[in-house]
Amino acid sequence: MKLWGGRFTKATDKTAEAFNASIQYDCRMYGEDICGSIAHASMLAKQGIITTADKETIIAGLKAIYKEIEAGDFAFSIALEDIHMNVEQRLTEAVGEAGKRLHTGRSRNDQVALDTHLYVRREIAAVAKLLIALQQAIIDAAEKYGDVIMPGYTHLQRAQPILFSHHLLAYFSMLSRDFCHLEYVWKLADIMPLGAGALAGTTYPLDQQYVADLLHFTTIYDNSLDAVSDRDYILAFLEFAANLMMHLSRLSEEFILWSSSEFKFIELDDAHCTGSSIMPQKKNPDICELVRGKTGRFYGHLMGLLTVMKGIPMAYDKDMQEDKEGLFDAVDNLKFALAIYADMIGAMKVNKERMRSVLEEDFSNATDMADYLVKKGLPFREAHAVVGKTVRYCIESGKVLQELSLEEFKAFSPVITADIHHFLSIDICVEQRKTYNGTAPSSVRRQLAAAGTTVAAELTVQERWQSVADSLYELAD
Amino acid sequence: MKLWGGRFTKATDKTAEAFNASIQYDCRMYGEDICGSIAHASMLAKQGIITTADKETIIAGLKAIYKEIEAGDFAFSIALEDIHMNVEQRLTEAVGEAGKRLHTGRSRNDQVALDTHLYVRREIAAVAKLLIALQQAIIDAAEKYGDVIMPGYTHLQRAQPILFSHHLLAYFSMLSRDFCHLEYVWKLADIMPLGAGALAGTTYPLDQQYVADLLHFTTIYDNSLDAVSDRDYILAFLEFAANLMMHLSRLSEEFILWSSSEFKFIELDDAHCTGSSIMPQKKNPDICELVRGKTGRFYGHLMGLLTVMKGIPMAYDKDMQEDKEGLFDAVDNLKFALAIYADMIGAMKVNKERMRSVLEEDFSNATDMADYLVKKGLPFREAHAVVGKTVRYCIESGKVLQELSLEEFKAFSPVITADIHHFLSIDICVEQRKTYNGTAPSSVRRQLAAAGTTVAAELTVQERWQSVADSLYELAD
Amino acid sequence: MKLWGGRFTKATDKTAEAFNASIQYDCRMYGEDICGSIAHASMLAKQGIITTADKETIIAGLKAIYKEIEAGDFAFSIALEDIHMNVEQRLTEAVGEAGKRLHTGRSRNDQVALDTHLYVRREIAAVAKLLIALQQAIIDAAEKYGDVIMPGYTHLQRAQPILFSHHLLAYFSMLSRDFCHLEYVWKLADIMPLGAGALAGTTYPLDQQYVADLLHFTTIYDNSLDAVSDRDYILAFLEFAANLMMHLSRLSEEFILWSSSEFKFIELDDAHCTGSSIMPQKKNPDICELVRGKTGRFYGHLMGLLTVMKGIPMAYDKDMQEDKEGLFDAVDNLKFALAIYADMIGAMKVNKERMRSVLEEDFSNATDMADYLVKKGLPFREAHAVVGKTVRYCIESGKVLQELSLEEFKAFSPVITADIHHFLSIDICVEQRKTYNGTAPSSVRRQLAAAGTTVAAELTVQERWQSVADSLYELAD
Amino acid sequence: MKLWGGRFTKATDKTAEAFNASIQYDCRMYGEDICGSIAHASMLAKQGIITTADKETIIAGLKAIYKEIEAGDFAFSIALEDIHMNVEQRLTEAVGEAGKRLHTGRSRNDQVALDTHLYVRREIAAVAKLLIALQQAIIDAAEKYGDVIMPGYTHLQRAQPILFSHHLLAYFSMLSRDFCHLEYVWKLADIMPLGAGALAGTTYPLDQQYVADLLHFTTIYDNSLDAVSDRDYILAFLEFAANLMMHLSRLSEEFILWSSSEFKFIELDDAHCTGSSIMPQKKNPDICELVRGKTGRFYGHLMGLLTVMKGIPMAYDKDMQEDKEGLFDAVDNLKFALAIYADMIGAMKVNKERMRSVLEEDFSNATDMADYLVKKGLPFREAHAVVGKTVRYCIESGKVLQELSLEEFKAFSPVITADIHHFLSIDICVEQRKTYNGTAPSSVRRQLAAAGTTVAAELTVQERWQSVADSLYELAD
Repeated sequence: MKLWGGRFTKATDKTAEAFNASIQYDCRMYGEDICGSIAHASMLAKQGIITTADKETIIAGLKAIYKEIEAGDFAFSIALEDIHMNVEQRLTEAVGEAGKRLHTGRSRNDQVALDTHLYVRREIAAVAKLLIALQQAIIDAAEKYGDVIMPGYTHLQRAQPILFSHHLLAYFSMLSRDFCHLEYVWKLADIMPLGAGALAGTTYPLDQQYVADLLHFTTIYDNSLDAVSDRDYILAFLEFAANLMMHLSRLSEEFILWSSSEFKFIELDDAHCTGSSIMPQKKNPDICELVRGKTGRFYGHLMGLLTVMKGIPMAYDKDMQEDKEGLFDAVDNLKFALAIYADMIGAMKVNKERMRSVLEEDFSNATDMADYLVKKGLPFREAHAVVGKTVRYCIESGKVLQELSLEEFKAFSPVITADIHHFLSIDICVEQRKTYNGTAPSSVRRQLAAAGTTVAAELTVQERWQSVADSLYELAD
Repeated sequence: MKLWGGRFTKATDKTAEAFNASIQYDCRMYGEDICGSIAHASMLAKQGIITTADKETIIAGLKAIYKEIEAGDFAFSIALEDIHMNVEQRLTEAVGEAGKRLHTGRSRNDQVALDTHLYVRREIAAVAKLLIALQQAIIDAAEKYGDVIMPGYTHLQRAQPILFSHHLLAYFSMLSRDFCHLEYVWKLADIMPLGAGALAGTTYPLDQQYVADLLHFTTIYDNSLDAVSDRDYILAFLEFAANLMMHLSRLSEEFILWSSSEFKFIELDDAHCTGSSIMPQKKNPDICELVRGKTGRFYGHLMGLLTVMKGIPMAYDKDMQEDKEGLFDAVDNLKFALAIYADMIGAMKVNKERMRSVLEEDFSNATDMADYLVKKGLPFREAHAVVGKTVRYCIESGKVLQELSLEEFKAFSPVITADIHHFLSIDICVEQRKTYNGTAPSSVRRQLAAAGTTVAAELTVQERWQSVADSLYELAD
Repeated sequence: MKLWGGRFTKATDKTAEAFNASIQYDCRMYGEDICGSIAHASMLAKQGIITTADKETIIAGLKAIYKEIEAGDFAFSIALEDIHMNVEQRLTEAVGEAGKRLHTGRSRNDQVALDTHLYVRREIAAVAKLLIALQQAIIDAAEKYGDVIMPGYTHLQRAQPILFSHHLLAYFSMLSRDFCHLEYVWKLADIMPLGAGALAGTTYPLDQQYVADLLHFTTIYDNSLDAVSDRDYILAFLEFAANLMMHLSRLSEEFILWSSSEFKFIELDDAHCTGSSIMPQKKNPDICELVRGKTGRFYGHLMGLLTVMKGIPMAYDKDMQEDKEGLFDAVDNLKFALAIYADMIGAMKVNKERMRSVLEEDFSNATDMADYLVKKGLPFREAHAVVGKTVRYCIESGKVLQELSLEEFKAFSPVITADIHHFLSIDICVEQRKTYNGTAPSSVRRQLAAAGTTVAAELTVQERWQSVADSLYELAD
Repeated sequence: MKLWGGRFTKATDKTAEAFNASIQYDCRMYGEDICGSIAHASMLAKQGIITTADKETIIAGLKAIYKEIEAGDFAFSIALEDIHMNVEQRLTEAVGEAGKRLHTGRSRNDQVALDTHLYVRREIAAVAKLLIALQQAIIDAAEKYGDVIMPGYTHLQRAQPILFSHHLLAYFSMLSRDFCHLEYVWKLADIMPLGAGALAGTTYPLDQQYVADLLHFTTIYDNSLDAVSDRDYILAFLEFAANLMMHLSRLSEEFILWSSSEFKFIELDDAHCTGSSIMPQKKNPDICELVRGKTGRFYGHLMGLLTVMKGIPMAYDKDMQEDKEGLFDAVDNLKFALAIYADMIGAMKVNKERMRSVLEEDFSNATDMADYLVKKGLPFREAHAVVGKTVRYCIESGKVLQELSLEEFKAFSPVITADIHHFLSIDICVEQRKTYNGTAPSSVRRQLAAAGTTVAAELTVQERWQSVADSLYELAD
């Protein structure tokens, strides 16, 4: 029997019922639903809205249901629509009358908002942990391969020699911004919606601050209509996730390039590759391709929820039920991707010799020649033009800059002296870029130290989040 | 044991394996996979690539597996990655040596392309059937409420009186375009990819035309690289689905508006509404809101696959495995939405009196007054200005146009005569719009007849598709 | 002549040149480009990389160009590709040799990053100002119409009576989150990229902190590859803008509904509506429809840039040039929408009587009857069922709850006494919802006070941003 | 003065007016607007709705305005909102009274629909021409480099040797599907909306078929509400364009890869590359990167319009005005991209030796060894495993397959005989893949012939479209 059927003269159509139900996926929030109800019941009793005896009966019943679900003994019902009705109905079966008093001063609109806020907080803590672990894996790899020099690229053309660790740390920086983003998401998720009722608040003397304290929320929604119709915290999570996956899609692209026979810069571990059903020689960077490809579903989930919310009136509309599947899928895939990437970066091998050797045969040091000329007094634009012509000469004569004799150099500019070959050597090119965020070993050491500090600070934040998230389930113990 | 592991020195990481696997969702294509393999084996034997005895062993084995899966007796394995490897491995277990010959002249790249083409064809037939049924439900409702007049809107402001059936038939037209779109999707899906191998074709003397005939494909891919890397047919399906859902989102918006207390134009059946957990009086048009909301996930799936395909090189990349979940979810939700909407339109009640009564109290006939003045000789722009002033006068004096006396009318334009009230009556306003696609009863009858013809033609197409789709499974019987 | 042409043997194709150029739109950043160059030149001189005389020549030349552009006397050239080359070329024409030294220790990659960071900071300040003004307009309207009661809706069905001001303040809350979001965007924009060079830092002894101080940046990019390839701050702006427009699309939908003849809750000012070319009576809420519609382009710009960034390798790729047009369009349309909405809300009229009258004829007080029964001792679920039956009785007998006699009430539950009519009156229903964020006048007063505090705090932030943004242009004075 | 202002008491707010106006961009449809009006006026006179004298005055006036605009002598006005009002107002100024009769039996709703249909038809013809030219450029390149062998890739790992022409023709196939898609778009655009009025048809005895004939439309909208609210043809164009750009993004990715120092497969012409402001050696494939990047805006425009249309009620809403800017931008960028790509493919150089040499040093022929073993009697799965082990042996001993001695081969499988080296040679590997769409020279010749036939058929279609598009402007001559 539907819990809302009094006004109706006819049962719900079975297809409509199935279409309407959300229990297939919102069942994953059973812990949040039950603990939220325990907090609600505690407050109702404290305020004298239900008796202490009823409260105790309700809480005992809810704890029993929690155990049932954890043990896999609970049969979820489509006809009961969602996790809220499934739990409440089971409670009433189990404890009778008292169960019917649980929904006092509450609506499914604020209840589902509460559950989803709790769920998002929990998953923020989990994702943050994996994100930090990936950042640490990047630091570790940057330290391990501290002396590897590789060609840096722009437009996928070799541009200037850089430290491999410097390149990796660019991703560390992106992930640090993602962590900042996550802090913004947490802020939006850490607002308590219960007590908003269907949309207008309730006529019972609720103590919303008490519930917020029990559930460790920092603030309470300022406006009850907003409390039930806000999905900004989910959008923010999806935006965070889409940006993070965009970053990983770029790293994936690079790993795929670097694993190709043409680049041969790295070799991924066999454990993170697969073969071909037909071509026996193949070792494919599937994980990287999958992560790059999965970026699509994250963009899709974001676009999906933005579309859902476009142009729908206050306060709650059923459209909003569409907020969950994309969120859940994003959470699952994000955790997968972060965990595997940390492992994969730890296990991959870097081909230092190959990286170095390609640098010997190209023009990555052309900027250094221009800078050399500037230091000898040429304006930069003229120096640039001189080097351009020198490079053209080299290409036509099949040489690289280092191979030119001093005489050849002098033909392009008389200011060039014997020290030119020194300043064109790969190691010196790298060493010379000592600007704050540049690629010189001293600069990269500074960046590594800063990265360590960042990770330490993030860990402190993550631990606080984790403790908030974990404390919830103690209510059901 | 992986079927591709010969070159590898180390087993796949368990997390990577789970991340990599697609069997959780591609198992729904078991029928396509098995029947495709049966066709492949038949061809191999016909061409003398395997023996007739091996072919018979293979086909018997595949039929047995088909029955096992249908009966729910098949245990799918994550370690075997996908439906193809699950079936092939089971076959080899069951029939031995012959099973190992099945993958001759074939790659998973062309195999999965084949399966997905077959799957899309099957679902096009299924979706087409439901789409036609919804169109028929619209025709039926248009006929049932043939004499109902309602206000037509632009900018959600009442514009001109129209027939309710005329309004409904606008959606019929949209759905007809969707059917056309589906024909385009079919065309893209109806191309046979098998024989492309991994990307380059194979060294065996395959008879691809024979396989195409067995599987009722109209054409074969012209280029083998394209055959394994083409996902246009899936994109086309998602574009079709996104457009169709956009149309339904507009109909949903209107049903939601019309179900509101403010409009009261229709009443949806109790069977298609739900109530509130807190507000006992509520009867909510949940189905309509859900369909409007689900538009989001369709847009998301389209955006997702477009993103997946952006910028990936030839031929097959693992990213493309991300083509399926969005497709499957779109198919499921689309079928649901189409079926429920046909039922809901059949069961809803239309409030003819309410629609009429609101027309009596507004200015929907103002254009008719302008047209009247034009017919009396005024240029349209002047007529428009005269009516604008008349309406302003009415608003200020709390009247509608029909309530003005001839004298009041004449104050605005001396050309007005006693017949003005006739031409302002709602029925006449509707009757006068006799243009080809206008709202006059005669025009709408023409539209209804044309709609009937359209449905008949669509049915013929759908039956052909259905027969092609059904014939596949006969191979496994 | 191209500034980079030394290595090339052939001129750029004209079509390719036009396709490649960005000057058509990036010219709007001329102020940022020139002031950034002034800061760069100052630093070069301070570090002894160029002479003081050269610095002074350069800065005088740049200031002259700034004036030229402001005066509309500057001819931008497609062949010079972008704002950077246009300015540098003009500088060299004007001041000769010294101009060729400006680009020392700098690349277009970090230069365009700098310009865009400066531009985004400037527009954040401008948008924030308009956002706060809109929030203030909402507060003003909420105060002006403080005693207006309207039906609150869920599922577009009347749910419970609420204060009109309470409803408006839900949008205030959304916009407050948007302001928070903007603070996150500022944080990402407020990082200094100059000195990153092409990707690897430079060989000159730059003082990046000095430049950061001159340009009032809080921090410097930690990694030079990241500095040139980061577009997160633009994505963050587009996410902020998409969310804000989503909020406005909901408000627009409501204004459109409320302006309809069916609702008649508000009347927008003539100044914000337009008429029809054919229907003289029409007064259309075009602005609201446009804002709702423009939501589409904001979502599109976000998806566009996410797509651009997907899967492109480090460091700079030309794809990133596609970051600007969507940003600029978003900025322009957002400022338009915010400004007009503040005006429109100030000018609209609210139909208090109409809102009240519809409440007298519906069941918005049904929850209050359930709460009444709970307070008389019934469990909530039973109370809900009793009211459901009472409502059904009312519908069948054409009454509303207030019209039932005590006897009729008692037939549904014996606990009902004479005070029932008191608790069902609209004013009492509203007054009773005294929860923290509820609709009772006392709660809404609290919300209004909090809103005032929020606006004051936001203003402080905005003033700081404005001062940072304005200080830039002093460099060119 | 607004043409619709009769009912209003107050002028439009200036900001609202600017926000509301579309003349800034819809002015590009002046030809369509004027010719559509000429057709409308002709029909009005033929039906006796206006006099022949008025018709002639109107048409002469419209032709004069057409010339004015073509000559750049027309001052468009924001206050007149759109192209329709700008033209009509100018007409009335020029010819007086008759001009005021032009809008008889027409609304801006059907007028803008007509203009946009005509515009889309014109641009379909233009885009089709460029699309065919690009296909022809691919055919030409495939013929020019008919004997070039390159490594074929899956997962960006070398998979099997293929003909370079075979690889290029995969893109020909994609573009052929895009042409098919365009035919679907044409079908949707080739429906005449005029006569639908605001939404309901009109009270005048219009001859819509006559107008359709004048404007060469194949059919007329069946339903007038649909005629003014349909934007499917624009969505279809954006879907076509998004898919096409996705295809080009893949080709761009490949050109970028192939232009890298690591691949060195092609060299783009200097005319299609640009240099660096700082690194004198750089030659960047900017055009390819831009095309890959511009894919983002196409996806964005599609998502934008889908969002606009989501959930808006019948019939016309102002939101729909947002249909044009994305369309126009898509048209412009698409034409640019198609034209440049045809040129670029024609001008690029292919490095045949490099492609060949990399094949000599890898395992692209491993599948051929497996096929060899199958032909010697091994089941495919066993053959696959044998080759896997052989490859592993080769990697460990630093050899490729061709370098193994017969004895070494025999250690892996005794069935191997002296002909193994023949079957592993690159040319034989390619020659053996004679399947219908395979890479053997004979197969590719067949594909080339088919491509020629396709282009010829497309040209016929394009010429028909062009003639329809061109005939429109004859009306204004």
